[in-house]
Amino acid sequence: MKAIGFKKSLPISEADSLIELDLVQPIPTANDILVKIEAISVNPVDYKVRQNTNLLQPHDQPKILGWDAAGTVVAVGDKVDHFKLGDRVFYAGDITRQGSYAEFQLVDENLVGHLPESIPFLEAAAMPMTSLTAWEALFEKMKLDQEDTCSKSILIIGGAGGVGSVAIQLVKQMTGLHLITTASRLESKKWCKNMGADLVVDHRNLVGEMQQAGHEHVDFILNCVNTDDYWEIMSKLIRPEGHICCIAESKWALDLNMIRMKSVTLSWEYVFTKAIYITEGQSVQRNILNQLAGLMESKKIKSTLNCVYKKFCVETLKEVHRKIESGSSIGKTVIDFININSCT
Amino acid sequence: MKAIGFKKSLPISEADSLIELDLVQPIPTANDILVKIEAISVNPVDYKVRQNTNLLQPHDQPKILGWDAAGTVVAVGDKVDHFKLGDRVFYAGDITRQGSYAEFQLVDENLVGHLPESIPFLEAAAMPMTSLTAWEALFEKMKLDQEDTCSKSILIIGGAGGVGSVAIQLVKQMTGLHLITTASRLESKKWCKNMGADLVVDHRNLVGEMQQAGHEHVDFILNCVNTDDYWEIMSKLIRPEGHICCIAESKWALDLNMIRMKSVTLSWEYVFTKAIYITEGQSVQRNILNQLAGLMESKKIKSTLNCVYKKFCVETLKEVHRKIESGSSIGKTVIDFININSCT
Repeated sequence: MKAIGFKKSLPISEADSLIELDLVQPIPTANDILVKIEAISVNPVDYKVRQNTNLLQPHDQPKILGWDAAGTVVAVGDKVDHFKLGDRVFYAGDITRQGSYAEFQLVDENLVGHLPESIPFLEAAAMPMTSLTAWEALFEKMKLDQEDTCSKSILIIGGAGGVGSVAIQLVKQMTGLHLITTASRLESKKWCKNMGADLVVDHRNLVGEMQQAGHEHVDFILNCVNTDDYWEIMSKLIRPEGHICCIAESKWALDLNMIRMKSVTLSWEYVFTKAIYITEGQSVQRNILNQLAGLMESKKIKSTLNCVYKKFCVETLKEVHRKIESGSSIGKTVIDFININSCT
Repeated sequence: MKAIGFKKSLPISEADSLIELDLVQPIPTANDILVKIEAISVNPVDYKVRQNTNLLQPHDQPKILGWDAAGTVVAVGDKVDHFKLGDRVFYAGDITRQGSYAEFQLVDENLVGHLPESIPFLEAAAMPMTSLTAWEALFEKMKLDQEDTCSKSILIIGGAGGVGSVAIQLVKQMTGLHLITTASRLESKKWCKNMGADLVVDHRNLVGEMQQAGHEHVDFILNCVNTDDYWEIMSKLIRPEGHICCIAESKWALDLNMIRMKSVTLSWEYVFTKAIYITEGQSVQRNILNQLAGLMESKKIKSTLNCVYKKFCVETLKEVHRKIESGSSIGKTVIDFININSCT
């Protein structure tokens, strides 16, 4: 089968930063299903793994990237309970295993959602990782619910990105919170408004614009961007006894005392925690994806798909990595597998 | 009225580290009540404030320490709704105001609990600050409840101290969690067992003893002792998606990434946050103290009082500060105001 991966951690400009591979099609066992992939999307974690993986595996085995896929079940392991051949599925998967830049992929059924016929593969492929991240951050970590009314507020830092775009929609669908988000470019602001933001503020003058809009404090902050650079700003903006949730690894040690007098709570949200550590908790991700599919089917949540490439090949993926490394992406970029065998 | 305070931040060995003062008895206004104090207890925050307060107040006004008191209401402000003359009360108060090392003290009624006749002032004075801290940490921050069964576990670091001693009892009364606590000396271990701990481990070999007892991970950690020194240990012992709550200010910046892969949540609990920041939330502390009084009256929670001094004078308070600075206190030390006017 065709796959795209790498053997050495290289800048995207290098010829071998991503390479085409011809691998043996894997066979599912136990709880694994084998998925024929129809579309994938690319996330910042993809280029971070590409940049930082020291490959010292036996036989120089390449690493296949990719943690967002939609496709069809073509084989199942002997312990699979929830899926059968022909089922349409979507999932983020497990960062410790081979990814979805491949014609076929093995994935544990507990991490996989059912995809209704009415949702196109392209729209579905944009969603799993960002939706799982946003859902876990908002509802498992910060424990938002429908009783959170507009007398309380949430600030989403990085609203136009993948996680931010889903988070805005989930907050507006599932809670009554007043929702403020950051964006700077005109098109990003428009995108955030379109996703449902009540107020969009410029991240370059965040505290100032918040104060101008009458928001000295917010009850919740979901930071989808950069933990370190926003640390001091978040410690100013969070209300006493408020809750901050961060996604991006911090580059240096942080002064936690800045949020102590306010008795603030801080959560990390890492979408692969369940896959890596909590075998019995993995199926929670299946449930989240199934609920998300329901919300998409009833048009309550729209796909954050913003750009489609129609060739699954090294050139396409290099271009997408370059774009995402620049940090200015709006919504999600999806790769359609329709031209998997005619990429030249 | 007689009070004990300081004008300069000094080591306890210095003559003027604590001094006796003769102050004008204050008059309550608005939501304040005036309390004639019958007993106080001493907390680590007392010596920390004594050591670190730079007094640059007008007229060289001395700082009165003390944030645990039990007494009787002798005057009320014109907006007081919940108390009348003669009511027995107990409270921690507000760190930004003058403290309870005094014959009389002003305190906002929203921070004060009613004290039933059946609970002696001495037993009550030991409780407010530690109970509010433990309660807010366990039930507001970590959101423990009765549905938390013994299939889950909590580690309380520093079980024999003031906060630890109440926290052990609250966890056993209000949840089904398996409760592990640290203690090292024989008498501390015995004290923790007596408060209700299921397992006591030595903090000098914490990870080792936990593993030996079959606890690779715990679901919750309440650290009543030292945030910095336990950072790495906590990051090892907390389960993925677990919750840590810390009380003690950290001395240096911390590597938050150590708990990122596990998607851990970290809360600060600072007992004065409500008094300092959240006017509308202050009355929550009155409710907590009232519930605590109910639990004490029905013998479900026992006072953590461990030692009584019967003279309210500079010598007594210097001795107690010395003892608490040593860090080896068990339970709480209370000062009975019975000999307030005959201390020589």
